[in-house]
Amino acid sequence: MRSIVINAMIVTVNAENEVIHNGSMIFEEDTITYIGESPENLASFDQVINAHGKIVMPGLINTHTHAAMSLLRGYGDDLPLQEWLEQKMWPIEGKFQEEHIRLGTELSVIEMLKSGTTTFADMYNQMDIVADIVRQSGSRASLSRGMLGFGSKEMLTQKLKDTVRFAKQWHLQAEGRVRVMISPHSPYTCSPDFIKEALVIAKELDLPIHIHVSETEREVKLNMDRYKKRPVEHLYHLGVFDHPTLIAHAVHVNQEEINLLEKMGVKISYNPGSNLKLGSGIAPVPEMLKVGIRVALGTDSAASNNNLDMFEEMRLASLIHKGYHQDPLAISAKIAIQMATRYGAEALFMEDEIGSLEVGKKADFIILNTNQAHFHPMYDPISHIVYSASGKDVQDVFINGKQVVKYGEVLTLDEQRIIFEVEQIVNQWR
Amino acid sequence: MRSIVINAMIVTVNAENEVIHNGSMIFEEDTITYIGESPENLASFDQVINAHGKIVMPGLINTHTHAAMSLLRGYGDDLPLQEWLEQKMWPIEGKFQEEHIRLGTELSVIEMLKSGTTTFADMYNQMDIVADIVRQSGSRASLSRGMLGFGSKEMLTQKLKDTVRFAKQWHLQAEGRVRVMISPHSPYTCSPDFIKEALVIAKELDLPIHIHVSETEREVKLNMDRYKKRPVEHLYHLGVFDHPTLIAHAVHVNQEEINLLEKMGVKISYNPGSNLKLGSGIAPVPEMLKVGIRVALGTDSAASNNNLDMFEEMRLASLIHKGYHQDPLAISAKIAIQMATRYGAEALFMEDEIGSLEVGKKADFIILNTNQAHFHPMYDPISHIVYSASGKDVQDVFINGKQVVKYGEVLTLDEQRIIFEVEQIVNQWR
Repeated sequence: MRSIVINAMIVTVNAENEVIHNGSMIFEEDTITYIGESPENLASFDQVINAHGKIVMPGLINTHTHAAMSLLRGYGDDLPLQEWLEQKMWPIEGKFQEEHIRLGTELSVIEMLKSGTTTFADMYNQMDIVADIVRQSGSRASLSRGMLGFGSKEMLTQKLKDTVRFAKQWHLQAEGRVRVMISPHSPYTCSPDFIKEALVIAKELDLPIHIHVSETEREVKLNMDRYKKRPVEHLYHLGVFDHPTLIAHAVHVNQEEINLLEKMGVKISYNPGSNLKLGSGIAPVPEMLKVGIRVALGTDSAASNNNLDMFEEMRLASLIHKGYHQDPLAISAKIAIQMATRYGAEALFMEDEIGSLEVGKKADFIILNTNQAHFHPMYDPISHIVYSASGKDVQDVFINGKQVVKYGEVLTLDEQRIIFEVEQIVNQWR
Repeated sequence: MRSIVINAMIVTVNAENEVIHNGSMIFEEDTITYIGESPENLASFDQVINAHGKIVMPGLINTHTHAAMSLLRGYGDDLPLQEWLEQKMWPIEGKFQEEHIRLGTELSVIEMLKSGTTTFADMYNQMDIVADIVRQSGSRASLSRGMLGFGSKEMLTQKLKDTVRFAKQWHLQAEGRVRVMISPHSPYTCSPDFIKEALVIAKELDLPIHIHVSETEREVKLNMDRYKKRPVEHLYHLGVFDHPTLIAHAVHVNQEEINLLEKMGVKISYNPGSNLKLGSGIAPVPEMLKVGIRVALGTDSAASNNNLDMFEEMRLASLIHKGYHQDPLAISAKIAIQMATRYGAEALFMEDEIGSLEVGKKADFIILNTNQAHFHPMYDPISHIVYSASGKDVQDVFINGKQVVKYGEVLTLDEQRIIFEVEQIVNQWR
């Protein structure tokens, strides 16, 4: 099948951050085959998409979330972190059955698709359910079974075995839309030995590590108390950073750690909304960008965000640091849009496939309805994408060349059925 | 005309922040006459609005903007403040004709109405144009002619005369929807004498003062250099705070100034989005709330925001301080929603009329479409309003009992005509 998008304002987010006004993009099956200024003869195409005056841009990449936890959206806000975790999140999560994970994940996938996220990195458990929803929904994802290092030796061995089984069963399945990463949860919940065992299987399977690091000051203190090392140094000494690794958060890292992360090529998922809401702090992102780290963005779960709108994360990422450092140049719109697309693809080790609109990459793109007051005057589409737009401006979403959202409605999942079932299943917790 | 909203989740934002699940609200002409749990016999109503499962809440109050400047949305971002002002904003604003002010204001009013803002405080010039758009659009506003203290004695006298004329012509016009405030621009652009002259007319007309104060550190330094006083102390000594006053920004105020502002009952319009984007800094809002100041919210202009979505300001106001102070309790959702409604009404000296849904107040309310993934599970509507919703979730807007937005479309202004004309008129500046 050969398709063409015409009359579009194409925000490529290629290496030059090029914008093509009134451009065309051709894709054949799942792959982009042409981007340029002049439209061809349209009669030869199976599908012609007229994006007149609208913005066409790469789908957004959410590099860190826990999709099933949207079932806990707004369930206990404005609480101290430990109270929130221990009295709100953990007791309810402990009760999660397959059905909860399925509904929570479906709710999140709907929200992500509608708001223009075409790829997400999910860390949770019972990941076969999540993988199956990715398959069915047409989304793209990098999935990892989150392994908390608690429990008996047998339980831990079982977690590692399950991770290997899941990876073998799902990696590169669903037309290649599902990928797998290996997730020891964090240095504060996993022993050094358990992290090393996880690293061994990551190497055997040739899959990247995805791990939480230094989200809170408390974690750093814990690590110092236990291992006399800050978390980044600790993981470095365990050899984790010799292997492709994505770390989530990195809020409390000093300049030495930043330099080490850069040197080792570690990827970073920055989650501004969640870090702010939980009172975790403000990550030194301008400092990371300065040494050349290409920081990616994530929402974290809807339990701590409380939505999954990546436009908001772009905007927050740019605004916070301008205000915090009293420097309007801290993180520009041109950087922020890359953090949500190109850098996201690099963070998930998928930069050959996604992250920009370029010939040879997958046709993962979104169309924004610019025919609204807040997109005008249209001096600069990248400015409006970062500083004025929201996920609600996404009109159409294509992933792997297939349309999954049309005029704001998800084609592959039934939003109304899922909302109904979600409300039913949480009734017991009100 | 007698109208009733039925089956609604009514977020009253009354003094108890009460939420009525499955409630009804009656309004007769422009005034709310009943709020309660049980619906009456519906046959006697001229209009029945079925808000089944939807959120009904007070319209949002934007306490500081410059509507016409939306014509400069995205015209020069990511620049140092002085360069942005001197090379981008001022040269173009200097070219503004009546037509520019009309189109910029129409564009802003459309955006504000669609995103649930029912009242806005605007400071600009040629305010008759703005007042006429407010009249026509059905919006509510507190308007002030912004008086920069530059120019000859004759020019300054003319500005004061024009302010008096505008106030007499428009205050309480358009069914009472237009009010007027008196605006000497700021201590750094107006001499003490000019501020005192403005104060005299404010007293004569019995209208509040609306003035910029301490947005940047540079302003504070300028004031210290010129008058050996910080701006708040300076205005206090000029007698401004003996009169009802709203100050915009208050980013750089110390504890002593905060105490003084509280003591004098000065109202504060906090503009988090603009303060962050321009790199002005982070205002000490938790400190203000702590001493009892009821801080209101504003967007500032779309040239420095870059949208006019008050939901975003609510969320930013809550999130920034949690992260900055590493305290998830810094500003709760329950406070943030009041900042955008009740406290906003107080800041504009309109708390008897608007700011909450209560019997006797004006029927200024909005209906949110909650039938979307990001509103579920619905544990707590106030949490979702502050942490998950956006202006795009606003479905219907009523002001003074009249519907001005229906299913997301403005009934009183033609959005498509205005977008077209806006793009035409800015062509010369691209």
